[in-house]
Amino acid sequence: MAKRIPIPGNKKLLLEKGDKTYLPGISVDCVIFGFHENELKVLLLQVGQSHQWALPGGFIKKNEPIENAAYRVLQERTGVQNIFLQQFNVFGAIDRSDPSIHLNRYLEYGIKIPKDNWLLQRFITIGFYALIDFSEVNLKDIISEDNVEWMDINKLSSLMMDHSEIVQKALETLRTQLAYLPIGKNLLPKKFTMPELQKLYETILNEKLDRRNFQRKLLSFGILNRLTETKQGGAHKAAYLYTFNEKKYQKALKVGLYGSW
Amino acid sequence: MAKRIPIPGNKKLLLEKGDKTYLPGISVDCVIFGFHENELKVLLLQVGQSHQWALPGGFIKKNEPIENAAYRVLQERTGVQNIFLQQFNVFGAIDRSDPSIHLNRYLEYGIKIPKDNWLLQRFITIGFYALIDFSEVNLKDIISEDNVEWMDINKLSSLMMDHSEIVQKALETLRTQLAYLPIGKNLLPKKFTMPELQKLYETILNEKLDRRNFQRKLLSFGILNRLTETKQGGAHKAAYLYTFNEKKYQKALKVGLYGSW
Repeated sequence: MAKRIPIPGNKKLLLEKGDKTYLPGISVDCVIFGFHENELKVLLLQVGQSHQWALPGGFIKKNEPIENAAYRVLQERTGVQNIFLQQFNVFGAIDRSDPSIHLNRYLEYGIKIPKDNWLLQRFITIGFYALIDFSEVNLKDIISEDNVEWMDINKLSSLMMDHSEIVQKALETLRTQLAYLPIGKNLLPKKFTMPELQKLYETILNEKLDRRNFQRKLLSFGILNRLTETKQGGAHKAAYLYTFNEKKYQKALKVGLYGSW
Repeated sequence: MAKRIPIPGNKKLLLEKGDKTYLPGISVDCVIFGFHENELKVLLLQVGQSHQWALPGGFIKKNEPIENAAYRVLQERTGVQNIFLQQFNVFGAIDRSDPSIHLNRYLEYGIKIPKDNWLLQRFITIGFYALIDFSEVNLKDIISEDNVEWMDINKLSSLMMDHSEIVQKALETLRTQLAYLPIGKNLLPKKFTMPELQKLYETILNEKLDRRNFQRKLLSFGILNRLTETKQGGAHKAAYLYTFNEKKYQKALKVGLYGSW
């Protein structure tokens, strides 16, 4: 007989007493987009022995606001903290829960979950998302029982349950926000060129943009200050450097890029 | 001793067996905004003997997608159907549930709910919203056990639980959408004047807008066709009539008023 791995105490507790601590049937999942030097990634972890990739997610304590649960879960599972999370959508299809995930995970410890266990019920999940500079998160310092990694958004293999759909919906939300809110602070160096800003947009939208249209549109928002300095760029002529106009950037975050009516 | 009202069968069933039919701890609430001739209203119902006004809301069946629950609840409680509902936010503060509402409602029938009954647990609610022409909904034809009414958005007295907050958040979402999506179809007559369109915006934003800026901005979106007809308006000179350019309106619904990048 193969030697069984003993079940860790926290996993046993979650199975047997989780319904005393957590709200039944509802979870949170976090889509953390990371941008750095023209790459858009998403923070994932590899779950259990199945090695399937999944979003960092978890349960809501009975006495915990849903936002707090999202921050806690993200920190507990990936070590990442101090990120502003935004609720974006609830996923509530009846077939989104996959009991076999829990069944298989506990079978590794030789435990068969009873059918009426809380973990096997239908779960609705509340999606939260954020966009940060992934170079500022040092995953090597993170102690997590799962393997945590930044994965290229265009190279996601199939994720656990409906997590691919959750990532897609978060990406759609991010792209919609791009149409009326400013972006770039904390993602670009303090001084940046117009091509660098355009690359940020192109990376998020995953499409090439017309250079002239982009520049005209961005300048019309009034959120950029052009500096007298320029940046020497390889084969091209020197490019002007810009900074964000802090006051106008903050205002646009509130009333939108096109101003109030 | 005062004569007790006998408890209706459905209320008894909800209390005693509701947890067999519905998901625990999660509900849906619908914010239906109605616009007609410069008035913005919200659909409310008066609950139980407390006569407190509340949003039409209810529970999610164990085998029901959350969107379906929102449509069903709206129809069951107000008779209103065939409205496109959009999810906008989840409300999950720990103190948002108010057990006294259920306690008092059942006390009217002389029933004291046990503390561990599912109705008295913490509930998280998923908010859905819509904007329609309220003149097209004939509330007189509706058979509901509750009193259902359109209430002026500026004259809402205190609503049940956190329902005022839910209405406010839905209104914020609507106003944000106004900044980048077209609006007006099905809310204005087929042919309308610029002042009529402006009034729609002013009513939703609850502020006066500058006539020239508004006209310039709206025309720049390219979603309007100006007709050769004019409309005679009282003391003012004749105003041009407009219709929406169906193709461009539909495109703007997808890519936003300012077009794609």
